[in-house]
Amino acid sequence: MTGDTLTGDLSAAVVVTLMLIPQSLAYALLAGMPAHVGLYASVLPLIGYALLGRSPALAVGPVAIASVMTFDALLPFFTPGSPEWVAGGMFLALASGLILLVFGFLRFGFIAALLSHPVMSGFVSGAAILIILGQFKTMTGIEVSGGTAMQQLHKLATNLDSVNMVTLIVGLSTFILLLLARRFAGKLFKSAGVRGLLLDILTKSSPLVMIAIVTLVLVASGFDADTATVGAVPTGLPLIALPPMSSAYTGLVISALLIGVVGFIESVSMARAIGRIRDVPTDADAELRGLGAANMLSGLSGAFPVTGGLSRSVVNLDAGARTPLAGVFSAILMVGVLLGAGQYLAALPLASLAALIIVAIWALFDWQTLRDCIRYDRADAGGWLVTFFGVLSLGVEHGIMLGIALSVGTVLWRQSRPHIAVMGRLPGTEHFRNVNRHDVQTLPNALFLRVDANLFFANWDRVRDFIDQQTQPLQTDGHVVLSMTSVSDIDTTAVEGLQGLARDLKARGITLAFSEVKGPISDKLKRAHLAEVSSYLSTHEAYEAIEAAQAEPPSEAPSEPTGDNTSR
Amino acid sequence: MTGDTLTGDLSAAVVVTLMLIPQSLAYALLAGMPAHVGLYASVLPLIGYALLGRSPALAVGPVAIASVMTFDALLPFFTPGSPEWVAGGMFLALASGLILLVFGFLRFGFIAALLSHPVMSGFVSGAAILIILGQFKTMTGIEVSGGTAMQQLHKLATNLDSVNMVTLIVGLSTFILLLLARRFAGKLFKSAGVRGLLLDILTKSSPLVMIAIVTLVLVASGFDADTATVGAVPTGLPLIALPPMSSAYTGLVISALLIGVVGFIESVSMARAIGRIRDVPTDADAELRGLGAANMLSGLSGAFPVTGGLSRSVVNLDAGARTPLAGVFSAILMVGVLLGAGQYLAALPLASLAALIIVAIWALFDWQTLRDCIRYDRADAGGWLVTFFGVLSLGVEHGIMLGIALSVGTVLWRQSRPHIAVMGRLPGTEHFRNVNRHDVQTLPNALFLRVDANLFFANWDRVRDFIDQQTQPLQTDGHVVLSMTSVSDIDTTAVEGLQGLARDLKARGITLAFSEVKGPISDKLKRAHLAEVSSYLSTHEAYEAIEAAQAEPPSEAPSEPTGDNTSR
Repeated sequence: MTGDTLTGDLSAAVVVTLMLIPQSLAYALLAGMPAHVGLYASVLPLIGYALLGRSPALAVGPVAIASVMTFDALLPFFTPGSPEWVAGGMFLALASGLILLVFGFLRFGFIAALLSHPVMSGFVSGAAILIILGQFKTMTGIEVSGGTAMQQLHKLATNLDSVNMVTLIVGLSTFILLLLARRFAGKLFKSAGVRGLLLDILTKSSPLVMIAIVTLVLVASGFDADTATVGAVPTGLPLIALPPMSSAYTGLVISALLIGVVGFIESVSMARAIGRIRDVPTDADAELRGLGAANMLSGLSGAFPVTGGLSRSVVNLDAGARTPLAGVFSAILMVGVLLGAGQYLAALPLASLAALIIVAIWALFDWQTLRDCIRYDRADAGGWLVTFFGVLSLGVEHGIMLGIALSVGTVLWRQSRPHIAVMGRLPGTEHFRNVNRHDVQTLPNALFLRVDANLFFANWDRVRDFIDQQTQPLQTDGHVVLSMTSVSDIDTTAVEGLQGLARDLKARGITLAFSEVKGPISDKLKRAHLAEVSSYLSTHEAYEAIEAAQAEPPSEAPSEPTGDNTSR
Repeated sequence: MTGDTLTGDLSAAVVVTLMLIPQSLAYALLAGMPAHVGLYASVLPLIGYALLGRSPALAVGPVAIASVMTFDALLPFFTPGSPEWVAGGMFLALASGLILLVFGFLRFGFIAALLSHPVMSGFVSGAAILIILGQFKTMTGIEVSGGTAMQQLHKLATNLDSVNMVTLIVGLSTFILLLLARRFAGKLFKSAGVRGLLLDILTKSSPLVMIAIVTLVLVASGFDADTATVGAVPTGLPLIALPPMSSAYTGLVISALLIGVVGFIESVSMARAIGRIRDVPTDADAELRGLGAANMLSGLSGAFPVTGGLSRSVVNLDAGARTPLAGVFSAILMVGVLLGAGQYLAALPLASLAALIIVAIWALFDWQTLRDCIRYDRADAGGWLVTFFGVLSLGVEHGIMLGIALSVGTVLWRQSRPHIAVMGRLPGTEHFRNVNRHDVQTLPNALFLRVDANLFFANWDRVRDFIDQQTQPLQTDGHVVLSMTSVSDIDTTAVEGLQGLARDLKARGITLAFSEVKGPISDKLKRAHLAEVSSYLSTHEAYEAIEAAQAEPPSEAPSEPTGDNTSR
C-alpha cells in the first residue's frame, strides 16, 4: 500500500464519518430504533465489509431504504423502540447477513437480475416519498402511524390543529439551514481560500454543524423541554450478543431475504460504478460476502440491517478512498464518537434529524430514469410506474415483491422469445443468412434453421412451435437442418425435446440433421442417442449433401407431392 | 364437425366418465372435502374449459396434485370437511380461476417457464410420496394428522396396534383387485373377443367395478358399520353461489396463485403433447383462459381447484377425443350420476378410495426423468432432487416455492452469461468469426466483438465486464466495433450502459462503433444520442474503415505503445 493510498483512505474516512454521525442517528429513528443504535450500525459492519468486500469506495452503514424496510418488517410483530423491536432488528440483520454470505459463497451474484434498473428506480422513488411523508409527523409533532401513504397524508391534514409549534419551528429552521448549507457552504469556504481536505471537511460537516446550531439555540432559549430529543445515549461500545429468540422470527425470514437482496442490488450497482472510475473489476460474489459479513456483525453488535449508502459512497470516492480500509478508519473514528460524544447527542431534537432525512432522501427520487425509460423503452417506463405506485399503495415490502415479479416476468418473457432464423445460402459462398434479410438460395423440401439462443426449458416450447410451423409444408423425404452455431448450452428439457422432434419428423419421413455442433453439446446429444441424427461440420456441408441426395433418386423431379418414393 | 369427430368425442366421454366417477370422489377426499364435492368439480369446470380452452383431449377435473395443494393451503385456517373448509376450497378455485383468466387475457403463457421440467417432475414425485403416505391412515384407520412425511410415518409405526382390521382388509383387497384389474382386465376381455369401444369401456370401468365388488361383499358380510364409508350423498345438482366471505381468505391468495400456476404448467405440457399427436398448434394463453374458466365455474358450483389430469387425458386421447366437446359430453354424463347414483355411492368404503389413490398416484413418481437428468445435465438432476426432498421435508407449498426459486434462478443464471465472441476476418472473405475457433485476421489496437444475445438488464453487467476486460490492452486511438447482428431487442438499462461505455472509452481516446444494427435498435440508439457513434452496415465495412484510418497518420508504425499521437 502506497502512502498516497493511505492518505486518501484516511481523509475519506474523516469526511465520511462527519456525514455518518447525523445520518446514522436519523436512519436509526427511521428504522424505529433508539438513535444510538445507528451509531452501533456504523462500527463493526464497516469492518465486516472491509474483511470480505472489495469495492474501493463503497461506504457501508445504515441507509434509508434498508431502514424503512426494517421498520415495515417489524411493525406487525413488535412496538417501535421497544427492546423486542431492537432484538427483531438484530435478527433481521443476522438473517439477511447469513443469507447474503451463503449466496456469496454459492456465487449467486447473478441474482442482481432479480430487479431491473427501472424497477429499482421506481421502488426507491416510491420509498423516498413514503419516507418523506413519514417525517412530516416528526417535524410537526402530529401523531399519525400506520396506514398507506395516502391515509397518512389524510390523517395529517385532518389533525393540523394538534401541531407542536416548537417542533415545527425546529424542523423547518433545520430544513432551511440544511438547504442553505448544501447550496452555499462549499462556495463560501472556497471564496475564503479554503482548499483540499479542509474544504471537504468543512463542507461535509455542515449538516452536523447546522443541527448543532439549532440544538444550541433551542437549549439556550429554554424551549428544549417542549420538543422530542434523542435523549440519553449510553456511553460505550456495543456488546456482542445474539438477540433473545422469539417465535415471531419465522415471520421475518422473507423480510430478511428481501432487505438483503435489495441492499445487495443497490450496493453492487454502486460498486460497479465505483469500480469503473477506479479501474478495478467488480466481483458481485465478493460484494455479497462483504455485505453478508457487514450485516452479521451489525446483528451481533445490537444493530439493524446495513448496506452501501449512495451519498456517503459518492463522498468517499470524491475524498479519495482507494481501498475498503477507508471503512475501517471510519469505524475507528465512530468508536471515538461512541466513547466521547454521547452526552452531546442527547439534546439533538428529533425534528432536526427528520429534516436531515428529508433533505438527504429527496435526491433518491429518480424521475430522470423514468424520463429515460419513456424515451427508450415504454415497457421499462411501465415497470417504473407500476413499482412506484405499488410501493405508495401497498407499502415497501409488497412493493418490492411486485417489482421482483415484474423484473423476473420480463426475463422469462424475453427468454421465451428466442430469435430463430430460416436460412439460405448466399450465392457463390459457403455462408448462410436469414432468408428474410438476404437474397439467398434455398433447396426444395429442405429447411435450414438457426436458433440464436441456448436451448433450455424456458424457450424450448417456443422453438418447437416455430419448427412445427415451418416444417408444415415439408413432404416425405424432406430435410431439416438445425444450425447449432449459437447453442453453447442445452438442458434436459431441450435434449428430450430434440429426441421428440427427431422421432416426430421421422414418422413423417423427414430427416433431421444438425450442423456446427459445439463439442460439449455433441457429447450430450450422443448420450441422448441423438448420435444417429447426422451432424455436419458446417451448414454448407449439409446443404451439399442434401443437394446431392435430392439429385440421386430415379425420379428426377425435385420432390413428389405424394412422396411415394420413400424407403421406410 | 364430422360424424367421425362426434363419435370420437362421445365414446371418449363415456370412457373418461367411468374413470372420473371414482377418481373425483377420491380426489375430493384428498382435498379434505366431502366426497360428493368431487362430483360437482366434474360438471361445470369441464364445460368452462370447453368454452375457452383449445386442447382436443385435455381432460379437466379434480386431480391429485391440486387436491393435495388445496388441503395444505386450507389446513392452517379451517377444519377438514367442515362447511368453512368447503367454502375455503371454493375461494381457492375462484381466486386461482380469476388469476389464470387474467393471465390468459394478458398473454402470460410464458410463465410456464416458472418451473422447469425436472423441477416439476421432482415436485410431482415428492407430492406423490406424500399423498401415498397420507393414504396409509385411511387404509389402516390409524389417526395420524399433520406433520412432515417422516413424522407421519413415525406416528403410523408407533400406533400400529390401533389398526382397524376391517378397514385394512377392505383397503388391501381393493388395492390387490385394482392391481390385478390393471394388469389383466384388458388381456382378459381381448382374449374373450371384445374389441373397440366396448373393450375400452370394460377396461376403464374396471376400477369402478372392483370397488363396487368390494363394497357389495362388505355390505353383504355385515361389516360395513365397522369402517368409514362415503356416507350420505346429496342427490341433485350443485347450487351456483359465492362462498361466504372470511378474513382468512387474504392468507389464501398466494396459495391460489401457486395452485393455479402449477395446474397450468402441468396442463399446458400435456396439451402440447396432445397437440403434437393431433397435429393442432397449442396456444398457452388459450389454455390459461380455459383453466381459468374451469376453476371459476368450479368455485361457483361449490367445488375446489381443478386442472388437466394426466391419466384421464391419456385415456381421452386414446379413446378418440378430438375437440373439447368431449368434456361437455362427460359433464352431461356426470349430471346423470349426480341425479341418479347418490344412494349407491354412500356405501363406498373410504379405504377403497384410498387404495384407488395409491394405485393412480404411483404412476406420478417419475424416476425416469431423474435418470435422464443424471445422464444429460447434472444441474437438472440437482434441481429434481432438491425439489423432491424439499417437498418431503417442507410440504407441497414450500416445496413448490423452492422449485420456482430454483427454476427462476436457473433462468437468471443462464441469462447472466451471454455468449460473447471476439471476432476476426476469415482471410479473403467479408465474414467474421470467433478468434478462438477460426484462423482469422485481426487489426492491431482494434477489437471486434459480437454479443449473441439481446442486451438488457439481466446480462448488461456481464457484457460490460467482458468489454472492459477485453479493451484493457487497447491504447489511445484504438477502436472497438460491436457487432449487433444478434441483438433484436435492447432495454433502458442497456441503452444507458452503452452511453456509459461510449463515454468511458472516449475518455481513454478509444472510438466505439456499431455494425449490423437492426432498424428498431438503430432508432433507439438515435434517441439515446448514440447516433454520433459510427454505425457501419457490416463488420467488414468497419474493418476496412479502421484499416484505412490506421494507414493514414504520419507515423507508419501500426500502433505506438506510448500513444503520444492522439488528438483529444
